[in-house]
Amino acid sequence: MSVLAGLTAALSSGSVEIIDLTTPLSSETPILNLPQPFANTVGLSVSPVSNFDDAGPAWAWNDVTVGEHAGTHLDAPVHWITGKDGKSVDQIEPHRLVGPIVVIDKTTEVSADPDFLLEPEHFEQWQSEHGLFPENCWVIFRTGWAARGADAAAFVNADDAGPHTPGVSAAGAKWLAGNASISGFGVETVGIDAGQAGGLDPMFPVHSFLLGADKYGVTSLRNVDRLPVTGATLVVAPLPIVGGTGSPSRVYALVEKHVVEKDAAEKA
Amino acid sequence: MSVLAGLTAALSSGSVEIIDLTTPLSSETPILNLPQPFANTVGLSVSPVSNFDDAGPAWAWNDVTVGEHAGTHLDAPVHWITGKDGKSVDQIEPHRLVGPIVVIDKTTEVSADPDFLLEPEHFEQWQSEHGLFPENCWVIFRTGWAARGADAAAFVNADDAGPHTPGVSAAGAKWLAGNASISGFGVETVGIDAGQAGGLDPMFPVHSFLLGADKYGVTSLRNVDRLPVTGATLVVAPLPIVGGTGSPSRVYALVEKHVVEKDAAEKA
Ligand SMILES: [Mn+2]
Ligand SMILES: [Mn+2]
Repeated sequence: MSVLAGLTAALSSGSVEIIDLTTPLSSETPILNLPQPFANTVGLSVSPVSNFDDAGPAWAWNDVTVGEHAGTHLDAPVHWITGKDGKSVDQIEPHRLVGPIVVIDKTTEVSADPDFLLEPEHFEQWQSEHGLFPENCWVIFRTGWAARGADAAAFVNADDAGPHTPGVSAAGAKWLAGNASISGFGVETVGIDAGQAGGLDPMFPVHSFLLGADKYGVTSLRNVDRLPVTGATLVVAPLPIVGGTGSPSRVYALVEKHVVEKDAAEKA
Repeated sequence: MSVLAGLTAALSSGSVEIIDLTTPLSSETPILNLPQPFANTVGLSVSPVSNFDDAGPAWAWNDVTVGEHAGTHLDAPVHWITGKDGKSVDQIEPHRLVGPIVVIDKTTEVSADPDFLLEPEHFEQWQSEHGLFPENCWVIFRTGWAARGADAAAFVNADDAGPHTPGVSAAGAKWLAGNASISGFGVETVGIDAGQAGGLDPMFPVHSFLLGADKYGVTSLRNVDRLPVTGATLVVAPLPIVGGTGSPSRVYALVEKHVVEKDAAEKA
């Protein structure tokens, strides 16, 4: 049987499941909120074109306004000054947007410290347990943060010092950017950098190092707790906005049931 | 080897390729243009938030305004009066959006007659040659129309009687809606109905029958000529706009190289 005939059969039988990692997109979807004097993007707003009325008796449709970086979205290299001569979102090759998922689970650490940062040693520790990161992989940082998604204040988790959300240290971001196997980095939080990353050196190191190295980010992922540590396949689907710095994206994971079960058995 | 390990290996070796079926999204992307008194949707417009300036010294980003039904997009059941109690775009289960592709190629017929309509006999003829439509399939109507995509006037192909673009007859649409295996219908043109479908009975029969039967449409597909007749897998990725009648979508096809070659050999 060919690979795709096998995939079709597995989808039909349910042995491969499609898990939606995308945050539903509405006016309530949490978005990034930078401090003054920086400008901020907008969340979703909807404007009806017709709604079974004189403007369209048999049909309803809407126009929408939304930030390229609202909700679950992809960061393209041209979003950051380090990648400004790189790819816009429409120029990223599809084969970089579909690949094996590596889950790094720091739910326990983040629950104790919302400012927790991934360091090179965490990636090295993961590889010593599970093997080298596979070619063209997406590293997904599991933090449990999506559980706060229904509560905008808890999701942003800000005090006088700004937002407190987990991320990656400057050394960790440099490590990820230097790993040739990695296509991208995915997070449950509102952005790919930590809430306090404006104070790191360089500031916003994940943006700075990854986007400057032709790697990509996806944010506001849900259902990450349903992924096995290895063995799932990510499909990142941004709109191909010509020249765009990013795009709201649909993100699916293909998960093989016996992989999930095997992983659960190993933990038990 | 598990199904997904096989897929990962095939993507790495290039034996499975990801073909982008999406029209790039810009202010030039052709959109539907209905006659008076009906309201029309908008194409993409982009508004900068910052561009490596005081509003964001290290980053560039934009807000965008776009129709739910602009460019390559999905039609959800609630778009049409026959489906108004059905699913909005965010409610469509991901497993209905990923499935085997069936290509019906009428490029020759459409080149002779731009108003060409698919009839039930065309679907039956296809099945007599290639077997029954597989479970959860997407029927893609190959017409060669995407070749007109760079020329807005040629793409719409209108005269005093309105647009002349290929589609499906009322009987054909009813046939598709009645086939339990079909998840959706994809076209190269600006909408899932023919240019002259306002004059059919019921008017806009693909919208009317398919969206009323919990089937979906995708439009403005490119690169359909790179698909084998059978054996490829479609991934339709609309944004999960809460309550949305549709969404601009990224659409990928997974194609197995030997399947394409086998198909070409059969034609030779
Ligand atoms: Mn972003
Ligand atoms: Mn539409």
